[in-house]
Amino acid sequence: MMLNDLLNRTSEWLKGEGPLSDIVISSRLRLARNIEKLPFPHWASKEKEEEILNIILDATKILDQFKDALFLKLDELDSVDKQFLVERHLMSHEFALRSSHKGLVLTSDEVVSLMINEEDHIRLQVMQSGFNLDGAWKIIDEIDTVLSKKLNFAYMPDLGFLTACPTNAGTGMRGSVMLHLPALVMTKQINRILAAVAKLSFNVRGLYGEGTQASGNFFQISNQVSLGHAEDDIIENIKSVIRQIADQEAAARANLMGSHQQMLNDRIFRAFGILENARIISSNETIELLSMVRLGLDVGLIKDIDKKLVNDLFIFTQPAHLQKMSSKKLTPTERDAIRASLIRKKLLNK
Amino acid sequence: MMLNDLLNRTSEWLKGEGPLSDIVISSRLRLARNIEKLPFPHWASKEKEEEILNIILDATKILDQFKDALFLKLDELDSVDKQFLVERHLMSHEFALRSSHKGLVLTSDEVVSLMINEEDHIRLQVMQSGFNLDGAWKIIDEIDTVLSKKLNFAYMPDLGFLTACPTNAGTGMRGSVMLHLPALVMTKQINRILAAVAKLSFNVRGLYGEGTQASGNFFQISNQVSLGHAEDDIIENIKSVIRQIADQEAAARANLMGSHQQMLNDRIFRAFGILENARIISSNETIELLSMVRLGLDVGLIKDIDKKLVNDLFIFTQPAHLQKMSSKKLTPTERDAIRASLIRKKLLNK
Repeated sequence: MMLNDLLNRTSEWLKGEGPLSDIVISSRLRLARNIEKLPFPHWASKEKEEEILNIILDATKILDQFKDALFLKLDELDSVDKQFLVERHLMSHEFALRSSHKGLVLTSDEVVSLMINEEDHIRLQVMQSGFNLDGAWKIIDEIDTVLSKKLNFAYMPDLGFLTACPTNAGTGMRGSVMLHLPALVMTKQINRILAAVAKLSFNVRGLYGEGTQASGNFFQISNQVSLGHAEDDIIENIKSVIRQIADQEAAARANLMGSHQQMLNDRIFRAFGILENARIISSNETIELLSMVRLGLDVGLIKDIDKKLVNDLFIFTQPAHLQKMSSKKLTPTERDAIRASLIRKKLLNK
Repeated sequence: MMLNDLLNRTSEWLKGEGPLSDIVISSRLRLARNIEKLPFPHWASKEKEEEILNIILDATKILDQFKDALFLKLDELDSVDKQFLVERHLMSHEFALRSSHKGLVLTSDEVVSLMINEEDHIRLQVMQSGFNLDGAWKIIDEIDTVLSKKLNFAYMPDLGFLTACPTNAGTGMRGSVMLHLPALVMTKQINRILAAVAKLSFNVRGLYGEGTQASGNFFQISNQVSLGHAEDDIIENIKSVIRQIADQEAAARANLMGSHQQMLNDRIFRAFGILENARIISSNETIELLSMVRLGLDVGLIKDIDKKLVNDLFIFTQPAHLQKMSSKKLTPTERDAIRASLIRKKLLNK
């Protein structure tokens, strides 16, 4: 597989499949692992970091799970390629900013990705469409088990897995779920709900993780604590919170469809009309408008558009995706025009 | 002719015909006249006002120019009918607020209208599409001449025609021209130009005359002074100012089409996309968006829509028009939905 092959594919996280996929976009588990007796990446010398990178690449290459995988060294990628991988949620934004002695292993279905020498030696991620943390757990646990036989993970019986930052120690696990909550935003209930979620020791983030603002009514909710709880407990805990939020979103949508359908229809079709006609459009406005169109599909007010097309547009209208499709660097102004033209083309060929 | 017959017609002022009609919407002349030895309407007793009304109705009914005309007494009209006539620019908003002993004579082509017992006994108006004050003068002068033979107008050789308010004395004439200046608004030159126009003793008003804000980039420019100048001079004076403003608008449009065509195209098509898709839309937003679509037609960026349809929408989406078409009173909320539905129907049947 080549990196550019991904251009023809739908990201796992936005496939729009899986349980409760009208509200829960995707479910992600991440495990942090470090190899015994080797320094954490930020403290390692360049030589040590390179050694760690090669040890992990060698160990992963022989795994069955990675037989079709892409093995990338970040210093061989240009900035557009790196941004492209961030846009597909296959590595973190912070990771993309650095290059030397860093690697990424990636399965062709984009379900599994493994960052090497991020904050920890290994950050293993499994992504599933829809509300499916159990499915993600099955996959990630299996890979972790196999990997742990090839690499000696730093582990202490009383603390669990050791990590560069103590907040990740213990299970080393973080689960996060991406939710699409347009009705809670429109009915102005979102702040109350997010405040309650934060009190339960969950983090709320935007579309691209740490430090990003919520946009397009997308919210990423993840556990803060990974120490002192078993993996199963953490997953059940997240599931229970997500289920409650999803119920509230569903109720808010039903309320809008009941008492405010005309207003909702107006918002949704205006968004659609702008997408179908704009000649210049920013990435952020695109996400906001697509969010409304997706809501229209989910509640049945828009019927004659393929949901996959809308999900694809979320991904393909992003800056690095546009540049890779155009096979050249583009200024923001150029992107805004090409983005508008791509959206029109896709929506009018519906 | 019946009042409701107008519903199937395009208002003269928005026909989109005549000289320079891509910038100059319509040209209007108005003459104020009063009958000798009768008190001005505001000072007249009810009996006197009724007497004046009947004198003038009788005088106009026998004129050739009014043989197909509609003769209306305002107290026989309901508030929707009166608002309907204001929306068609056939009488003033202030006139519509009062009823007793007031009348309106109206030719079926909506070119000539005559308000009886407004501020003056007679306010005679002639409207022409496009930049055509000369055409309007020819018509109004002829009617004025015939009328003056039937009614003794209050006139003093040194002052000219006498009027209730001295600012209208002399010729009793006001000329006003409705301009569509979207490019001067978009390029932020409009305030400078309107300030210069005001210094030349012209009034600048909005779409519905005195006291209304400019909306949809429509500006109505009229002379302030009617005393001490001959009619020809007043008309030439207005024509010269309008010609300069129209030249500036044309230059601004050319500039936008040259250096900022993409931005212009974006603004125009977004407006179009919203009109084609909104489910709730206010009268004011409609005018703003139609203004952009009209600009699109005038500069050639929109090609496949009939200009007449767009001009008609300006008129038919107004509150009283919507209510007359629905044959009932509608709340503003109901109107906003019916308006959106009408616009969609018209644009999608293009």
